[in-house]
Amino acid sequence: MSRGAPARPGAVVLLSGGLDSATVLAIAVERGFAAHCLTFRYGQRHEIEVERARHLARAGGAVEHRVVPLDLGFAGGSALTDPALEVPRDRDPDAIGRGIPITYVPARNTVFLAVALAWAEALEVRDVFLGVNAVDYSGYPDCRAEFLEAFERLAAVGTRAGIEGRPIRVHAPLLACSKAEVVREAVRLGVDLASTFSCYAPSAAGRPCGTCDACRLRERGFRDAGIPDPASYPR
Amino acid sequence: MSRGAPARPGAVVLLSGGLDSATVLAIAVERGFAAHCLTFRYGQRHEIEVERARHLARAGGAVEHRVVPLDLGFAGGSALTDPALEVPRDRDPDAIGRGIPITYVPARNTVFLAVALAWAEALEVRDVFLGVNAVDYSGYPDCRAEFLEAFERLAAVGTRAGIEGRPIRVHAPLLACSKAEVVREAVRLGVDLASTFSCYAPSAAGRPCGTCDACRLRERGFRDAGIPDPASYPR
Repeated sequence: MSRGAPARPGAVVLLSGGLDSATVLAIAVERGFAAHCLTFRYGQRHEIEVERARHLARAGGAVEHRVVPLDLGFAGGSALTDPALEVPRDRDPDAIGRGIPITYVPARNTVFLAVALAWAEALEVRDVFLGVNAVDYSGYPDCRAEFLEAFERLAAVGTRAGIEGRPIRVHAPLLACSKAEVVREAVRLGVDLASTFSCYAPSAAGRPCGTCDACRLRERGFRDAGIPDPASYPR
Repeated sequence: MSRGAPARPGAVVLLSGGLDSATVLAIAVERGFAAHCLTFRYGQRHEIEVERARHLARAGGAVEHRVVPLDLGFAGGSALTDPALEVPRDRDPDAIGRGIPITYVPARNTVFLAVALAWAEALEVRDVFLGVNAVDYSGYPDCRAEFLEAFERLAAVGTRAGIEGRPIRVHAPLLACSKAEVVREAVRLGVDLASTFSCYAPSAAGRPCGTCDACRLRERGFRDAGIPDPASYPR
Protein backbone atom coordinates (compact mmCIF):
# COMPACT_ATOMS: atom_id res chain seq x y z
CA MET A 1 0.00 0.00 0.00
CA SER A 2 1.03 3.53 -0.68
CA ARG A 3 2.20 5.63 2.25
CA GLY A 4 0.71 8.79 0.86
CA ALA A 5 -1.13 11.39 2.88
CA PRO A 6 -4.10 9.99 4.83
CA ALA A 7 -7.44 10.37 3.03
CA ARG A 8 -9.25 13.54 3.91
CA PRO A 9 -12.59 13.11 5.68
CA GLY A 10 -15.53 13.96 3.45
CA ALA A 11 -18.20 16.60 4.02
CA VAL A 12 -21.39 17.55 2.22
CA VAL A 13 -21.42 21.28 1.41
CA LEU A 14 -24.67 23.00 0.45
CA LEU A 15 -23.68 25.32 -2.37
CA SER A 16 -26.17 27.80 -3.79
CA GLY A 17 -23.92 29.83 -6.04
CA GLY A 18 -24.11 32.81 -3.69
CA LEU A 19 -21.36 34.57 -1.78
CA ASP A 20 -22.00 32.89 1.57
CA SER A 21 -22.04 29.27 0.43
CA ALA A 22 -18.99 29.76 -1.84
CA THR A 23 -17.16 31.05 1.23
CA VAL A 24 -18.34 28.10 3.28
CA LEU A 25 -16.98 25.73 0.63
CA ALA A 26 -13.59 27.43 0.95
CA ILE A 27 -13.75 27.13 4.75
CA ALA A 28 -14.58 23.42 4.54
CA VAL A 29 -11.66 22.82 2.17
CA GLU A 30 -9.33 24.88 4.39
CA ARG A 31 -10.37 22.72 7.36
CA GLY A 32 -9.22 19.66 5.44
CA PHE A 33 -12.47 18.21 4.14
CA ALA A 34 -13.04 16.60 0.76
CA ALA A 35 -16.08 18.61 -0.30
CA HIS A 36 -19.11 16.92 -1.90
CA CYS A 37 -21.17 19.88 -3.07
CA LEU A 38 -24.95 19.82 -3.34
CA THR A 39 -27.06 22.34 -5.23
CA PHE A 40 -30.82 22.36 -5.70
CA ARG A 41 -32.82 23.37 -8.71
CA TYR A 42 -35.89 24.14 -6.65
CA GLY A 43 -37.94 26.32 -8.95
CA GLN A 44 -36.11 29.50 -8.01
CA ARG A 45 -36.39 32.50 -10.34
CA HIS A 46 -32.67 32.95 -10.26
CA GLU A 47 -31.61 29.68 -11.89
CA ILE A 48 -28.41 31.33 -13.06
CA GLU A 49 -27.12 30.61 -9.56
CA VAL A 50 -27.12 26.88 -10.45
CA GLU A 51 -24.65 27.54 -13.27
CA ARG A 52 -22.54 29.67 -10.96
CA ALA A 53 -22.59 26.86 -8.40
CA ARG A 54 -21.19 24.46 -11.01
CA HIS A 55 -18.35 26.85 -11.68
CA LEU A 56 -17.68 27.61 -8.01
CA ALA A 57 -17.58 23.90 -7.09
CA ARG A 58 -14.85 23.33 -9.68
CA ALA A 59 -12.96 26.51 -8.83
CA GLY A 60 -13.26 25.78 -5.11
CA GLY A 61 -11.72 22.33 -5.33
CA ALA A 62 -14.81 20.21 -4.65
CA VAL A 63 -14.30 16.50 -5.24
CA GLU A 64 -17.85 16.15 -6.53
CA HIS A 65 -20.90 18.29 -7.31
CA ARG A 66 -24.51 17.17 -7.63
CA VAL A 67 -27.42 19.29 -8.81
CA VAL A 68 -30.69 17.85 -7.55
CA PRO A 69 -34.04 18.94 -9.00
CA LEU A 70 -36.51 19.48 -6.18
CA ASP A 71 -39.50 21.60 -7.03
CA LEU A 72 -40.47 23.60 -3.95
CA GLY A 73 -42.50 25.90 -6.17
CA PHE A 74 -45.35 23.38 -5.99
CA ALA A 75 -45.97 24.46 -2.42
CA GLY A 76 -46.21 28.13 -3.30
CA GLY A 77 -46.02 30.92 -0.77
CA SER A 78 -42.72 32.54 -1.78
CA ALA A 79 -41.74 35.27 -4.21
CA LEU A 80 -38.57 33.29 -4.95
CA THR A 81 -40.54 30.54 -6.63
CA ASP A 82 -43.81 32.22 -7.66
CA PRO A 83 -43.50 34.71 -10.53
CA ALA A 84 -46.90 36.17 -9.57
CA LEU A 85 -45.44 37.54 -6.31
CA GLU A 86 -43.33 40.69 -6.36
CA VAL A 87 -39.81 40.65 -4.99
CA PRO A 88 -39.41 43.59 -2.56
CA ARG A 89 -37.25 46.46 -3.85
CA ASP A 90 -34.99 49.12 -2.38
CA ARG A 91 -35.47 48.18 1.25
CA ASP A 92 -33.16 49.45 3.97
CA PRO A 93 -30.66 46.62 4.63
CA ASP A 94 -31.17 47.05 8.37
CA ALA A 95 -34.88 46.32 7.97
CA ILE A 96 -34.54 43.27 5.73
CA GLY A 97 -33.88 40.67 8.38
CA ARG A 98 -36.39 41.83 10.93
CA GLY A 99 -39.59 40.27 9.68
CA ILE A 100 -40.11 37.21 7.52
CA PRO A 101 -40.14 38.55 3.97
CA ILE A 102 -42.14 37.27 1.01
CA THR A 103 -38.89 35.82 -0.35
CA TYR A 104 -38.82 33.33 2.53
CA VAL A 105 -39.31 29.83 1.07
CA PRO A 106 -41.26 27.70 3.57
CA ALA A 107 -39.02 25.19 5.34
CA ARG A 108 -36.35 25.50 2.64
CA ASN A 109 -33.37 24.93 4.90
CA THR A 110 -35.10 21.97 6.53
CA VAL A 111 -35.59 20.37 3.11
CA PHE A 112 -32.06 21.16 1.92
CA LEU A 113 -30.49 19.85 5.13
CA ALA A 114 -32.63 16.71 4.96
CA VAL A 115 -31.35 15.87 1.48
CA ALA A 116 -27.80 16.74 2.56
CA LEU A 117 -28.27 14.37 5.47
CA ALA A 118 -29.43 11.60 3.12
CA TRP A 119 -26.33 12.06 1.00
CA ALA A 120 -24.02 12.26 4.01
CA GLU A 121 -25.47 9.03 5.32
CA ALA A 122 -25.04 7.29 1.96
CA LEU A 123 -21.47 8.64 1.62
CA GLU A 124 -20.75 7.69 5.23
CA VAL A 125 -19.47 11.16 6.04
CA ARG A 126 -20.24 12.95 9.27
CA ASP A 127 -20.06 16.63 8.40
CA VAL A 128 -22.48 18.95 6.63
CA PHE A 129 -21.66 22.60 5.90
CA LEU A 130 -24.09 25.36 5.00
CA GLY A 131 -23.96 29.11 4.60
CA VAL A 132 -26.84 30.31 6.74
CA ASN A 133 -26.47 33.63 8.44
CA ALA A 134 -28.40 34.89 11.44
CA VAL A 135 -27.27 38.52 11.15
CA ASP A 136 -28.72 39.59 7.82
CA TYR A 137 -31.64 37.19 8.11
CA SER A 138 -32.44 37.36 11.80
CA GLY A 139 -36.14 37.02 11.06
CA TYR A 140 -35.80 33.72 9.19
CA PRO A 141 -36.67 30.91 11.58
CA ASP A 142 -34.41 28.43 9.78
CA CYS A 143 -31.28 30.63 9.93
CA ARG A 144 -30.80 30.40 13.67
CA ALA A 145 -28.55 28.33 15.95
CA GLU A 146 -31.61 26.88 17.66
CA PHE A 147 -32.80 25.45 14.33
CA LEU A 148 -29.42 23.93 13.52
CA GLU A 149 -29.22 22.31 16.96
CA ALA A 150 -32.70 20.84 16.50
CA PHE A 151 -31.62 19.46 13.14
CA GLU A 152 -28.54 17.81 14.66
CA ARG A 153 -30.78 16.21 17.27
CA LEU A 154 -33.12 14.95 14.54
CA ALA A 155 -30.20 13.52 12.58
CA ALA A 156 -28.86 11.81 15.71
CA VAL A 157 -32.07 9.85 16.24
CA GLY A 158 -33.21 9.52 12.63
CA THR A 159 -30.26 7.96 10.82
CA ARG A 160 -28.37 4.73 10.97
CA ALA A 161 -25.14 6.64 11.57
CA GLY A 162 -26.71 8.57 14.43
CA ILE A 163 -28.05 5.61 16.35
CA GLU A 164 -24.77 3.77 15.81
CA GLY A 165 -22.93 6.59 17.58
CA ARG A 166 -21.62 8.54 14.59
CA PRO A 167 -23.97 11.54 14.53
CA ILE A 168 -23.86 14.12 11.77
CA ARG A 169 -22.39 17.51 12.67
CA VAL A 170 -23.91 20.60 11.08
CA HIS A 171 -21.43 23.43 10.49
CA ALA A 172 -22.61 26.97 9.83
CA PRO A 173 -19.35 28.91 10.13
CA LEU A 174 -20.88 32.20 8.94
CA LEU A 175 -23.86 32.09 11.28
CA ALA A 176 -22.75 35.07 13.34
CA CYS A 177 -20.85 37.03 10.67
CA SER A 178 -21.82 40.34 9.17
CA LYS A 179 -21.80 40.45 5.38
CA ALA A 180 -18.63 42.56 5.50
CA GLU A 181 -16.95 39.83 7.55
CA VAL A 182 -18.06 37.26 4.99
CA VAL A 183 -16.55 39.36 2.20
CA ARG A 184 -13.22 39.67 4.05
CA GLU A 185 -13.16 35.93 4.78
CA ALA A 186 -13.91 35.18 1.11
CA VAL A 187 -11.05 37.42 0.00
CA ARG A 188 -8.67 35.80 2.51
CA LEU A 189 -9.60 32.35 1.17
CA GLY A 190 -9.31 33.33 -2.49
CA VAL A 191 -12.97 32.72 -3.33
CA ASP A 192 -13.77 33.57 -6.95
CA LEU A 193 -16.05 36.44 -5.93
CA ALA A 194 -16.73 37.53 -9.50
CA SER A 195 -18.53 34.23 -10.07
CA THR A 196 -20.76 34.39 -7.03
CA PHE A 197 -24.32 35.47 -7.63
CA SER A 198 -26.68 36.92 -5.06
CA CYS A 199 -29.66 38.47 -6.89
CA TYR A 200 -33.19 37.15 -6.34
CA ALA A 201 -34.60 38.51 -9.58
CA PRO A 202 -31.98 38.87 -12.31
CA SER A 203 -32.70 40.03 -15.84
CA ALA A 204 -33.27 37.47 -18.60
CA ALA A 205 -29.65 38.07 -19.56
CA GLY A 206 -28.59 37.11 -16.01
CA ARG A 207 -27.68 40.54 -14.73
CA PRO A 208 -28.40 41.23 -11.06
CA CYS A 209 -31.13 43.82 -10.45
CA GLY A 210 -29.30 45.79 -7.78
CA THR A 211 -32.48 46.53 -5.82
CA CYS A 212 -33.72 43.27 -4.26
CA ASP A 213 -32.87 42.44 -0.65
CA ALA A 214 -30.02 40.13 -1.65
CA CYS A 215 -28.43 42.76 -3.91
CA ARG A 216 -28.81 45.44 -1.23
CA LEU A 217 -27.19 43.29 1.46
CA ARG A 218 -24.36 42.34 -0.86
CA GLU A 219 -23.74 45.94 -1.86
CA ARG A 220 -23.55 47.05 1.76
CA GLY A 221 -21.30 44.12 2.68
CA PHE A 222 -18.69 45.00 0.07
CA ARG A 223 -18.92 48.69 0.91
CA ASP A 224 -18.49 48.06 4.65
CA ALA A 225 -15.56 45.74 3.94
CA GLY A 226 -13.94 48.42 1.79
CA ILE A 227 -13.58 46.00 -1.09
CA PRO A 228 -14.93 46.57 -4.61
CA ASP A 229 -17.43 43.93 -5.79
CA PRO A 230 -15.88 42.23 -8.82
CA ALA A 231 -19.26 40.93 -10.01
CA SER A 232 -20.86 42.97 -12.75
CA TYR A 233 -23.42 44.76 -10.67
CA PRO A 234 -25.34 47.57 -12.30
CA ARG A 235 -24.87 49.95 -9.39
CA MET B 1 -72.10 34.78 3.64
CA SER B 2 -73.34 31.22 3.63
CA ARG B 3 -73.99 29.60 6.98
CA GLY B 4 -72.86 26.18 5.81
CA ALA B 5 -70.75 23.77 7.81
CA PRO B 6 -67.51 25.24 9.13
CA ALA B 7 -64.53 24.57 6.89
CA ARG B 8 -62.59 21.46 7.82
CA PRO B 9 -59.03 22.03 8.97
CA GLY B 10 -56.49 20.91 6.42
CA ALA B 11 -53.75 18.33 6.82
CA VAL B 12 -50.89 17.15 4.66
CA VAL B 13 -50.95 13.36 4.27
CA LEU B 14 -47.88 11.50 3.00
CA LEU B 15 -49.30 8.90 0.64
CA SER B 16 -47.05 6.25 -0.87
CA GLY B 17 -49.62 4.02 -2.50
CA GLY B 18 -49.03 1.31 0.10
CA LEU B 19 -51.41 -0.19 2.60
CA ASP B 20 -50.26 1.83 5.60
CA SER B 21 -50.43 5.30 4.08
CA ALA B 22 -53.80 4.60 2.41
CA THR B 23 -55.12 3.66 5.85
CA VAL B 24 -53.63 6.82 7.35
CA LEU B 25 -55.42 8.89 4.71
CA ALA B 26 -58.71 7.27 5.75
CA ILE B 27 -57.94 7.98 9.41
CA ALA B 28 -57.19 11.66 8.67
CA VAL B 29 -60.45 12.00 6.75
CA GLU B 30 -62.38 10.24 9.54
CA ARG B 31 -60.88 12.70 12.03
CA GLY B 32 -62.36 15.54 10.01
CA PHE B 33 -59.36 16.81 8.05
CA ALA B 34 -59.35 18.01 4.46
CA ALA B 35 -56.51 15.87 3.15
CA HIS B 36 -53.81 17.34 0.91
CA CYS B 37 -51.94 14.25 -0.24
CA LEU B 38 -48.26 14.25 -1.12
CA THR B 39 -46.46 11.51 -3.03
CA PHE B 40 -42.81 11.40 -4.10
CA ARG B 41 -41.33 10.05 -7.26
CA TYR B 42 -37.96 9.49 -5.66
CA GLY B 43 -36.29 7.05 -7.99
CA GLN B 44 -37.89 3.99 -6.43
CA ARG B 45 -37.97 0.78 -8.43
CA HIS B 46 -41.62 0.36 -7.69
CA GLU B 47 -42.97 3.42 -9.49
CA ILE B 48 -46.29 1.70 -9.94
CA GLU B 49 -47.01 2.83 -6.39
CA VAL B 50 -47.19 6.42 -7.67
CA GLU B 51 -50.09 5.49 -9.95
CA ARG B 52 -51.76 3.64 -7.12
CA ALA B 53 -51.34 6.70 -4.93
CA ARG B 54 -53.17 8.82 -7.52
CA HIS B 55 -56.06 6.40 -7.47
CA LEU B 56 -56.11 6.06 -3.67
CA ALA B 57 -56.10 9.84 -3.18
CA ARG B 58 -59.20 10.15 -5.33
CA ALA B 59 -60.90 7.10 -3.84
CA GLY B 60 -60.02 8.23 -0.32
CA GLY B 61 -61.61 11.66 -0.66
CA ALA B 62 -58.47 13.81 -0.72
CA VAL B 63 -59.10 17.44 -1.64
CA GLU B 64 -55.79 17.61 -3.50
CA HIS B 65 -52.90 15.37 -4.51
CA ARG B 66 -49.40 16.40 -5.55
CA VAL B 67 -46.70 14.15 -6.94
CA VAL B 68 -43.28 15.70 -6.40
CA PRO B 69 -40.22 14.41 -8.24
CA LEU B 70 -37.32 14.17 -5.81
CA ASP B 71 -34.47 11.95 -6.89
CA LEU B 72 -33.00 10.28 -3.82
CA GLY B 73 -31.33 7.73 -6.07
CA PHE B 74 -28.51 10.23 -6.64
CA ALA B 75 -27.31 9.54 -3.11
CA GLY B 76 -27.19 5.79 -3.61
CA GLY B 77 -26.94 3.31 -0.78
CA SER B 78 -30.33 1.62 -1.06
CA ALA B 79 -31.67 -1.37 -2.97
CA LEU B 80 -34.93 0.54 -3.40
CA THR B 81 -33.29 3.08 -5.68
CA ASP B 82 -30.21 1.27 -7.02
CA PRO B 83 -30.95 -1.53 -9.53
CA ALA B 84 -27.43 -2.89 -8.96
CA LEU B 85 -28.33 -3.87 -5.38
CA GLU B 86 -30.39 -6.99 -4.73
CA VAL B 87 -33.66 -6.77 -2.83
CA PRO B 88 -33.65 -9.43 -0.05
CA ARG B 89 -35.97 -12.39 -0.65
CA ASP B 90 -37.95 -14.86 1.44
CA ARG B 91 -36.89 -13.53 4.83
CA ASP B 92 -38.72 -14.44 8.00
CA PRO B 93 -41.11 -11.56 8.73
CA ASP B 94 -40.00 -11.57 12.37
CA ALA B 95 -36.41 -10.91 11.32
CA ILE B 96 -37.11 -8.14 8.83
CA GLY B 97 -37.36 -5.27 11.28
CA ARG B 98 -34.45 -6.14 13.48
CA GLY B 99 -31.51 -4.78 11.56
CA ILE B 100 -31.36 -2.00 9.01
CA PRO B 101 -31.89 -3.71 5.66
CA ILE B 102 -30.41 -2.80 2.30
CA THR B 103 -33.86 -1.46 1.33
CA TYR B 104 -33.49 1.34 3.90
CA VAL B 105 -33.27 4.65 1.99
CA PRO B 106 -30.97 7.03 3.88
CA ALA B 107 -32.92 9.75 5.70
CA ARG B 108 -35.98 9.16 3.52
CA ASN B 109 -38.57 9.98 6.16
CA THR B 110 -36.61 13.10 7.14
CA VAL B 111 -36.71 14.30 3.53
CA PHE B 112 -40.38 13.42 3.03
CA LEU B 113 -41.41 15.08 6.28
CA ALA B 114 -39.35 18.16 5.42
CA VAL B 115 -41.20 18.63 2.13
CA ALA B 116 -44.52 17.92 3.86
CA LEU B 117 -43.60 20.60 6.38
CA ALA B 118 -42.86 23.08 3.57
CA TRP B 119 -46.25 22.42 2.05
CA ALA B 120 -48.04 22.57 5.41
CA GLU B 121 -46.43 25.92 6.11
CA ALA B 122 -47.42 27.27 2.68
CA LEU B 123 -50.98 25.93 3.07
CA GLU B 124 -51.11 27.29 6.62
CA VAL B 125 -52.22 23.94 8.01
CA ARG B 126 -50.92 22.50 11.26
CA ASP B 127 -51.20 18.75 10.83
CA VAL B 128 -49.08 16.24 8.95
CA PHE B 129 -49.97 12.53 8.78
CA LEU B 130 -47.70 9.67 7.81
CA GLY B 131 -47.87 5.90 7.85
CA VAL B 132 -44.67 4.92 9.60
CA ASN B 133 -44.72 1.81 11.71
CA ALA B 134 -42.33 0.87 14.48
CA VAL B 135 -43.46 -2.75 14.78
CA ASP B 136 -42.55 -4.20 11.40
CA TYR B 137 -39.64 -1.82 10.96
CA SER B 138 -38.27 -1.58 14.46
CA GLY B 139 -34.72 -1.38 13.10
CA TYR B 140 -35.40 1.69 10.95
CA PRO B 141 -34.18 4.75 12.84
CA ASP B 142 -36.72 7.03 11.17
CA CYS B 143 -39.76 4.90 12.04
CA ARG B 144 -39.64 5.55 15.79
CA ALA B 145 -41.50 7.86 18.16
CA GLU B 146 -38.22 9.48 19.17
CA PHE B 147 -37.60 10.51 15.56
CA LEU B 148 -41.09 11.96 15.15
CA GLU B 149 -40.73 13.95 18.37
CA ALA B 150 -37.38 15.33 17.19
CA PHE B 151 -39.01 16.34 13.92
CA GLU B 152 -41.81 18.18 15.72
CA ARG B 153 -39.19 20.03 17.74
CA LEU B 154 -37.33 20.97 14.54
CA ALA B 155 -40.56 22.20 12.95
CA ALA B 156 -41.37 24.25 16.04
CA VAL B 157 -38.13 26.22 15.83
CA GLY B 158 -37.61 26.13 12.05
CA THR B 159 -40.82 27.53 10.60
CA ARG B 160 -42.70 30.78 10.70
CA ALA B 161 -45.77 28.97 12.02
CA GLY B 162 -43.74 27.35 14.78
CA ILE B 163 -42.11 30.49 16.11
CA GLU B 164 -45.46 32.30 15.91
CA GLY B 165 -46.97 29.71 18.25
CA ARG B 166 -48.72 27.44 15.75
CA PRO B 167 -46.39 24.44 15.64
CA ILE B 168 -46.93 21.57 13.26
CA ARG B 169 -48.20 18.32 14.74
CA VAL B 170 -46.93 15.05 13.28
CA HIS B 171 -49.46 12.21 13.40
CA ALA B 172 -48.37 8.61 12.96
CA PRO B 173 -51.53 6.74 13.99
CA LEU B 174 -50.18 3.33 12.94
CA LEU B 175 -46.85 3.66 14.74
CA ALA B 176 -47.58 0.94 17.27
CA CYS B 177 -49.89 -1.26 15.17
CA SER B 178 -49.15 -4.73 13.91
CA LYS B 179 -49.77 -5.26 10.20
CA ALA B 180 -52.86 -7.31 11.07
CA GLU B 181 -54.22 -4.36 13.05
CA VAL B 182 -53.55 -2.09 10.07
CA VAL B 183 -55.49 -4.48 7.81
CA ARG B 184 -58.46 -4.54 10.18
CA GLU B 185 -58.43 -0.75 10.51
CA ALA B 186 -58.28 -0.42 6.72
CA VAL B 187 -61.28 -2.74 6.33
CA ARG B 188 -63.23 -0.83 8.99
CA LEU B 189 -62.56 2.44 7.15
CA GLY B 190 -63.42 1.07 3.72
CA VAL B 191 -59.96 1.55 2.23
CA ASP B 192 -59.74 0.27 -1.35
CA LEU B 193 -57.31 -2.47 -0.40
CA ALA B 194 -57.21 -3.95 -3.89
CA SER B 195 -55.55 -0.74 -5.10
CA THR B 196 -52.85 -0.59 -2.46
CA PHE B 197 -49.42 -1.77 -3.50
CA SER B 198 -46.66 -2.94 -1.22
CA CYS B 199 -44.03 -4.72 -3.31
CA TYR B 200 -40.45 -3.37 -3.47
CA ALA B 201 -39.58 -5.08 -6.73
CA PRO B 202 -42.60 -5.72 -8.95
CA SER B 203 -42.44 -7.28 -12.39
CA ALA B 204 -42.35 -5.05 -15.46
CA ALA B 205 -46.08 -5.72 -15.76
CA GLY B 206 -46.57 -4.35 -12.24
CA ARG B 207 -47.22 -7.61 -10.43
CA PRO B 208 -45.92 -7.92 -6.87
CA CYS B 209 -43.09 -10.42 -6.44
CA GLY B 210 -44.44 -12.09 -3.31
CA THR B 211 -40.99 -12.65 -1.83
CA CYS B 212 -39.53 -9.23 -0.85
CA ASP B 213 -39.80 -8.02 2.75
CA ALA B 214 -42.80 -5.80 1.94
CA CYS B 215 -44.70 -8.65 0.28
CA ARG B 216 -43.89 -10.99 3.14
CA LEU B 217 -45.06 -8.56 5.81
CA ARG B 218 -48.24 -7.85 3.88
CA GLU B 219 -48.99 -11.52 3.41
CA ARG B 220 -48.57 -12.23 7.10
CA GLY B 221 -50.68 -9.20 8.05
CA PHE B 222 -53.66 -10.33 6.00
CA ARG B 223 -53.26 -13.90 7.20
CA ASP B 224 -53.09 -12.86 10.87
CA ALA B 225 -56.12 -10.62 10.37
CA GLY B 226 -58.02 -13.51 8.82
CA ILE B 227 -58.87 -11.42 5.78
CA PRO B 228 -58.08 -12.38 2.18
CA ASP B 229 -55.85 -9.90 0.35
CA PRO B 230 -57.87 -8.54 -2.57
CA ALA B 231 -54.76 -7.40 -4.42
CA SER B 232 -53.59 -9.74 -7.15
CA TYR B 233 -50.69 -11.31 -5.31
CA PRO B 234 -49.04 -14.32 -6.91
CA ARG B 235 -49.05 -16.38 -3.74
